[in-house]
Amino acid sequence: MNYFEHIPPIGYRGPECDEPFAFRHYDPDRVLDGKPLRDHLRFAVCYWHNFCWEGTDIFGEGTFLRPWHQLSDPMESARAKMDAAFDFMSLLGVPFWTFHDSDIAPAGESWRATRDNLERMVDYAERKMADTGLRLLWGTANLFSHRRYMAGAATNPDPQVFACAAGQIQKALEITHRLGGENYVMWGGREGYETLLNTDLRREQEQLGRMLCMTVDYKHKLGFDGPILIEPKPQEPTKHQYDYDVATIYGLLTRFGLEGEVKVNIEVNHATLAGHSFHHEIAMAQALGLFGSVDANRGDYQNGWDTDQYPNSVDELVMPCYEILRHGGFTSGGFNFDTKLRRQSVAPEDLFHAHIGAMDILALTWEKAAALLASGSLDDARTARYESWGGELGQPILGGDHDLESLAAVVVRDDLQPEPVSGQQELLENRVNAVIHSR
Amino acid sequence: MNYFEHIPPIGYRGPECDEPFAFRHYDPDRVLDGKPLRDHLRFAVCYWHNFCWEGTDIFGEGTFLRPWHQLSDPMESARAKMDAAFDFMSLLGVPFWTFHDSDIAPAGESWRATRDNLERMVDYAERKMADTGLRLLWGTANLFSHRRYMAGAATNPDPQVFACAAGQIQKALEITHRLGGENYVMWGGREGYETLLNTDLRREQEQLGRMLCMTVDYKHKLGFDGPILIEPKPQEPTKHQYDYDVATIYGLLTRFGLEGEVKVNIEVNHATLAGHSFHHEIAMAQALGLFGSVDANRGDYQNGWDTDQYPNSVDELVMPCYEILRHGGFTSGGFNFDTKLRRQSVAPEDLFHAHIGAMDILALTWEKAAALLASGSLDDARTARYESWGGELGQPILGGDHDLESLAAVVVRDDLQPEPVSGQQELLENRVNAVIHSR
Amino acid sequence: MNYFEHIPPIGYRGPECDEPFAFRHYDPDRVLDGKPLRDHLRFAVCYWHNFCWEGTDIFGEGTFLRPWHQLSDPMESARAKMDAAFDFMSLLGVPFWTFHDSDIAPAGESWRATRDNLERMVDYAERKMADTGLRLLWGTANLFSHRRYMAGAATNPDPQVFACAAGQIQKALEITHRLGGENYVMWGGREGYETLLNTDLRREQEQLGRMLCMTVDYKHKLGFDGPILIEPKPQEPTKHQYDYDVATIYGLLTRFGLEGEVKVNIEVNHATLAGHSFHHEIAMAQALGLFGSVDANRGDYQNGWDTDQYPNSVDELVMPCYEILRHGGFTSGGFNFDTKLRRQSVAPEDLFHAHIGAMDILALTWEKAAALLASGSLDDARTARYESWGGELGQPILGGDHDLESLAAVVVRDDLQPEPVSGQQELLENRVNAVIHSR
Amino acid sequence: MNYFEHIPPIGYRGPECDEPFAFRHYDPDRVLDGKPLRDHLRFAVCYWHNFCWEGTDIFGEGTFLRPWHQLSDPMESARAKMDAAFDFMSLLGVPFWTFHDSDIAPAGESWRATRDNLERMVDYAERKMADTGLRLLWGTANLFSHRRYMAGAATNPDPQVFACAAGQIQKALEITHRLGGENYVMWGGREGYETLLNTDLRREQEQLGRMLCMTVDYKHKLGFDGPILIEPKPQEPTKHQYDYDVATIYGLLTRFGLEGEVKVNIEVNHATLAGHSFHHEIAMAQALGLFGSVDANRGDYQNGWDTDQYPNSVDELVMPCYEILRHGGFTSGGFNFDTKLRRQSVAPEDLFHAHIGAMDILALTWEKAAALLASGSLDDARTARYESWGGELGQPILGGDHDLESLAAVVVRDDLQPEPVSGQQELLENRVNAVIHSR
Repeated sequence: MNYFEHIPPIGYRGPECDEPFAFRHYDPDRVLDGKPLRDHLRFAVCYWHNFCWEGTDIFGEGTFLRPWHQLSDPMESARAKMDAAFDFMSLLGVPFWTFHDSDIAPAGESWRATRDNLERMVDYAERKMADTGLRLLWGTANLFSHRRYMAGAATNPDPQVFACAAGQIQKALEITHRLGGENYVMWGGREGYETLLNTDLRREQEQLGRMLCMTVDYKHKLGFDGPILIEPKPQEPTKHQYDYDVATIYGLLTRFGLEGEVKVNIEVNHATLAGHSFHHEIAMAQALGLFGSVDANRGDYQNGWDTDQYPNSVDELVMPCYEILRHGGFTSGGFNFDTKLRRQSVAPEDLFHAHIGAMDILALTWEKAAALLASGSLDDARTARYESWGGELGQPILGGDHDLESLAAVVVRDDLQPEPVSGQQELLENRVNAVIHSR
Repeated sequence: MNYFEHIPPIGYRGPECDEPFAFRHYDPDRVLDGKPLRDHLRFAVCYWHNFCWEGTDIFGEGTFLRPWHQLSDPMESARAKMDAAFDFMSLLGVPFWTFHDSDIAPAGESWRATRDNLERMVDYAERKMADTGLRLLWGTANLFSHRRYMAGAATNPDPQVFACAAGQIQKALEITHRLGGENYVMWGGREGYETLLNTDLRREQEQLGRMLCMTVDYKHKLGFDGPILIEPKPQEPTKHQYDYDVATIYGLLTRFGLEGEVKVNIEVNHATLAGHSFHHEIAMAQALGLFGSVDANRGDYQNGWDTDQYPNSVDELVMPCYEILRHGGFTSGGFNFDTKLRRQSVAPEDLFHAHIGAMDILALTWEKAAALLASGSLDDARTARYESWGGELGQPILGGDHDLESLAAVVVRDDLQPEPVSGQQELLENRVNAVIHSR
Repeated sequence: MNYFEHIPPIGYRGPECDEPFAFRHYDPDRVLDGKPLRDHLRFAVCYWHNFCWEGTDIFGEGTFLRPWHQLSDPMESARAKMDAAFDFMSLLGVPFWTFHDSDIAPAGESWRATRDNLERMVDYAERKMADTGLRLLWGTANLFSHRRYMAGAATNPDPQVFACAAGQIQKALEITHRLGGENYVMWGGREGYETLLNTDLRREQEQLGRMLCMTVDYKHKLGFDGPILIEPKPQEPTKHQYDYDVATIYGLLTRFGLEGEVKVNIEVNHATLAGHSFHHEIAMAQALGLFGSVDANRGDYQNGWDTDQYPNSVDELVMPCYEILRHGGFTSGGFNFDTKLRRQSVAPEDLFHAHIGAMDILALTWEKAAALLASGSLDDARTARYESWGGELGQPILGGDHDLESLAAVVVRDDLQPEPVSGQQELLENRVNAVIHSR
Repeated sequence: MNYFEHIPPIGYRGPECDEPFAFRHYDPDRVLDGKPLRDHLRFAVCYWHNFCWEGTDIFGEGTFLRPWHQLSDPMESARAKMDAAFDFMSLLGVPFWTFHDSDIAPAGESWRATRDNLERMVDYAERKMADTGLRLLWGTANLFSHRRYMAGAATNPDPQVFACAAGQIQKALEITHRLGGENYVMWGGREGYETLLNTDLRREQEQLGRMLCMTVDYKHKLGFDGPILIEPKPQEPTKHQYDYDVATIYGLLTRFGLEGEVKVNIEVNHATLAGHSFHHEIAMAQALGLFGSVDANRGDYQNGWDTDQYPNSVDELVMPCYEILRHGGFTSGGFNFDTKLRRQSVAPEDLFHAHIGAMDILALTWEKAAALLASGSLDDARTARYESWGGELGQPILGGDHDLESLAAVVVRDDLQPEPVSGQQELLENRVNAVIHSR
């Protein structure tokens, strides 16, 4: 069975190419600032939406009927799925993949059996990775699908559930390390509440802090040197999730002394569900020193749930890319496509169209963002805007040499009446567009 | 001129009273848990919406035509306004009021003249307070209406603007202290950004931190012993405000070492604009030790801006009141009505209807919340829900005696398969309703 | 197997009753305006959420593990499910139920087999209804779960899918008629679009109009005299649904000449997802002569998807109930609980708590609404507000005796400067609360 | 006084031009499909935001301090404002302008005086238009700013207010006709409700219908042959506006027999506030035969009010432009910039940057949309998708030769099991991007 055998390997063919099975903008070998685009963008394909999800939604059954889901033996199905996944990723030519423990191996009758299944599938993956050269951007544990986690994993009212979650994290971190993963991600899908009526917020957040500390400790013990990344999301499936947004996570980390240890994996659609632009979340993470990696997708501004669509707008992505580049680009992180096909995109080809479009748009955006950064047109304006803070009034204020009374005295003495200066928003927006739409 | 001379003093007349100019539920002298309701609820009338705002909105001119706004001399107008305000508050029988510096005194030609005007109006207010027995819940400085603040006060790109803001805070804190204010509030209306294109997030937040530290220092120097309160709001007038919500403020305070010094003043409508329930914000503030005071109002779930309507739903308010009571009730804080009339409510009587309704609903809610707390029906369920965390597995986890590996070993050894237990949300909702709708 | 054998029949016990398995407010025999509450409220239990849904959500597996879902034979499972459903409804004491075709009978190998299964289960249901006295509020066809409907039913690009949908509607309407159903409902779950890029809006709406016309024709042919009801919903699962809200449906019906034939079934949570209050949708339906029935539930104002929670707020429901009562109450419609348990409410008892709470709150609300209507306090104010339209200027305007020029002439001649009159919103809100919180 | 004397006339300089005071994409003389871009795009500058608004927001005073607002004589100020406006529009090189009656002339002591002021300013405008060649895209009456309209204009509870509104519309339509206006617009800013408690929906909508009919009658009497356009908006300043969105207006028009007479003026930001994409509203208007004109601006997806920003995203605009082009482009309509500067954009230059950016982006988008249309890549896919509706099953369904029973018989006889076909959303999205990012 080769589900994708009729699809050619996807190569770069240039912007005027009409062929759908080709990249128009993503040339992995193209060098930008001394580094090939492949190493700038660090694309990853996710396992769950592409190979595990059957096309269900809350109102309807699966539409995809993938062949590996028709097999009755769970381990055989898991191997067939992995074959298809690596076939797909190889044809697509991405350097990385990402997975949850339960994505790649079925549960067994006991925890021991489950861990054995996982070990066997990790062996299988290890060979696949060696054969194809694919690398692991990050691994994670699924602590939200099984019914035991219905009321949270770390924040569950039952410590046995906490223990089960700890066991899964331990194993998932271990295999992530073994497979050479560059980060380890924690998405607290059910670490939140459905109703405050039965919830002890303080206690649950302390449980969460405990789990985070244990995870950081174990990472060090293992010798895993990638960062632990928390993925903010405000709600869904829960009414409220404790890792709401970047600013909330910052507070959580300072509370448990973990600012230096944990960073964030920012998802576009989670940002917008939290009432923020993706740009905001990236800029805030950079300002707080928390930036780690990106789940590249997009939401729908008219729908209030996680649609996880493939990114397709240079306009939406250019400033986030600019912020990442301005702070030096990715280190351990990358662009993971935490994206799913529309439920009507039932053809095998659709998986390719979706990823090709997303990769092309991000590659093009990245080049535009690099050009914008190189032009200095935004940075210069920003520097000029704050310039007087370097002067004789501004310096002592920031340096702690003024207090309210001394400043009040200056204001009255000099009768300060500073004249507003234009913020030039429209001009700066034009500068961004000038770069996007230059040739 | 007595604008309200046709209105009688508002007294408690009991729930079956049909008369609109009377309280049906708010009996200030009724004792609950050893304290009269007046001291539980600590109601305050705000100056700005009630006496300064003329009924404009972004699409239309003022509708109210208050007589004090027709006077040509600014100081005469300010005194007439204050006369009307104290007449109103006395008739209504609230114990507290709240104001911004610029609400009570007009700007002069210079900062010195402005401060003089303010001094004179504070003298006037002091006499009014002595005459009526009204007290000051909190004062604050208006750092958002003047055009100098269009790009922020503490976070302005011009340090002269920062200085002007510092001067205003110094004076406002001083007069708040002089008038016996019980708290000092900071609402960062324009401490945020309109566009990230021209904004240095890190720098602006440091400026904000500097101002907060200076304010705390000055408070101590003055000997003012009320708390400094930040009022979270996510956006409007700015695109994004740095004091977005309680969790964000927690992070901001830890960053500048101010957790013990600064608390929050939570506004209902700001909570809902931030994507949270009011209950959430109160509970989060209590969990983080930040709870200070409340701006009692309500928003409109179908409109995306601050409507500042008068609170009118026991159902929406009962759980927030319960959270406040569960943590001991108000200390320095209270319920300030940061509320404005609908623009069509042009009659003087409407100011009374609005406040009477709001006070009645909060008084009734408070009693329901106290009864709910006394019944123990929620607390008992919550305690039971987390009970096993006190047991032999839970204790060592929280105590730091487990790590991921030891927990993984337990899980595998005992093959832990914890069975989900009902969260009983619907039952608990019924319990709340049983108290609301008991007689 | 009797899943609910430990639960007693639920009876009315009065507001001070502490027992959870009892009604505190819903006394079905209590007579209001000459009619028992049972016949005012016309409560219905829905089949799908309560007996078909297994507690899955988009991120997690089922949590409920109902015994009838463990049976391997589909028809045996269907009968066990129906046994449990009728046990539940009998214990609860609701007069009505509602269902989709596929809720009660499994699909067979062919359409013929599917229809045979359905016939057999309708026979079974008919006996159950005779035994228990339960009646059918409405039936409907599930045209959204099967993968054939992924791109719509009536609006599908494939006419074969339209035909399948027509076949299902024909059968579902026939069995609804046979079971004495009082209405037939159409919810166009996938009659909308995922992307406009592949959608012909005009064509799809014409297909939808065709199906509606055929349904109305068949209703008449059958001799079914209940109304056809469309259930508005703005989005989810689709990006945009053609029956967005009441006003949109009005336009759709006028376009196909169906205003007199089709009415609406308004769901609370769909109203709020559409950006409207439930009150708005009820009032608009009454104003347009479209009101039919209600799916009573509630959404979550902080979450952007259909949460289908049980109604629990008198404050939210009182004005919608008042609007229904003001127009004479339900005729063929009723309150159907299109509600689902929280996924953590895994105990059989939770189904009772949820429905008991919902029925109690609606019964209490209905009495408050009736008292509000009887008081005349809102109607009198509204009548007074528009009174001058009955005068010498208003009458000829509405009667068509003025044109723009004649009115302009009057305005200039008399220099009309009408003075604003208070809209009294806060006073009217107080009047509503006075009724809610009277004893 | 020439406020813009330091600004050069704005000319087309090509995409690589770095100069901010030049068009990079908008070459008015460039011919596309036999028509210069000027006549395709039909750009209009609005009077109100650009020349009347002083930079206030709901929390702050004006920031702009335009010189014409400093003059004490109202008519002198009105003329200075008009001088500046025509200077600006001439320098910018737009072909059209738009205005409200009260934008251009101050109110007088009486209606007669107000109308006289207006006449004089229309004389003044007429000369300006002759001198500059500027034309009027549309005129309108301001029926929302004066306090008399606080409770609506046509829908006011006081018929005298209706009469005042009728008088204003009469005059505004007359002067629009006199100035050669190509459309007349009605935005019902306060034709809605603040609370349903005091509102008679049915009556108010009938009043609105009456005003619409009178306006249409007067248009015919005048011999004005442009269309009457309603501008949908869901809310703000009211809680709910009766012309909520395109679909709602369709229902309103059919109710009063006005489908053929009235069309819509669609504003981008109003579409998004209504929960729709701009694309949706354009496509729906085209599907319903209602498309008239466009208010080109943009909202902020994170803020819930009308931000009226300048359009700046090809990605957001390309499909709406494609829909307009696919139906033949503008006839009487055009792109009116109903946009306002950010409040911090206080420099005269900012008005230019804002409009230049907007015009450039729309010109570029228009060309991309034309290329997309010419490519046929979307239309071909759409046609293919619905192809089977032309076949032997589809034709008779649409033709009315089938009923539910005959279709049910076909389904059972042939056991129809149509196989889902991919909707190809991702592929089509790639095709759009291929055109946007081709060279």
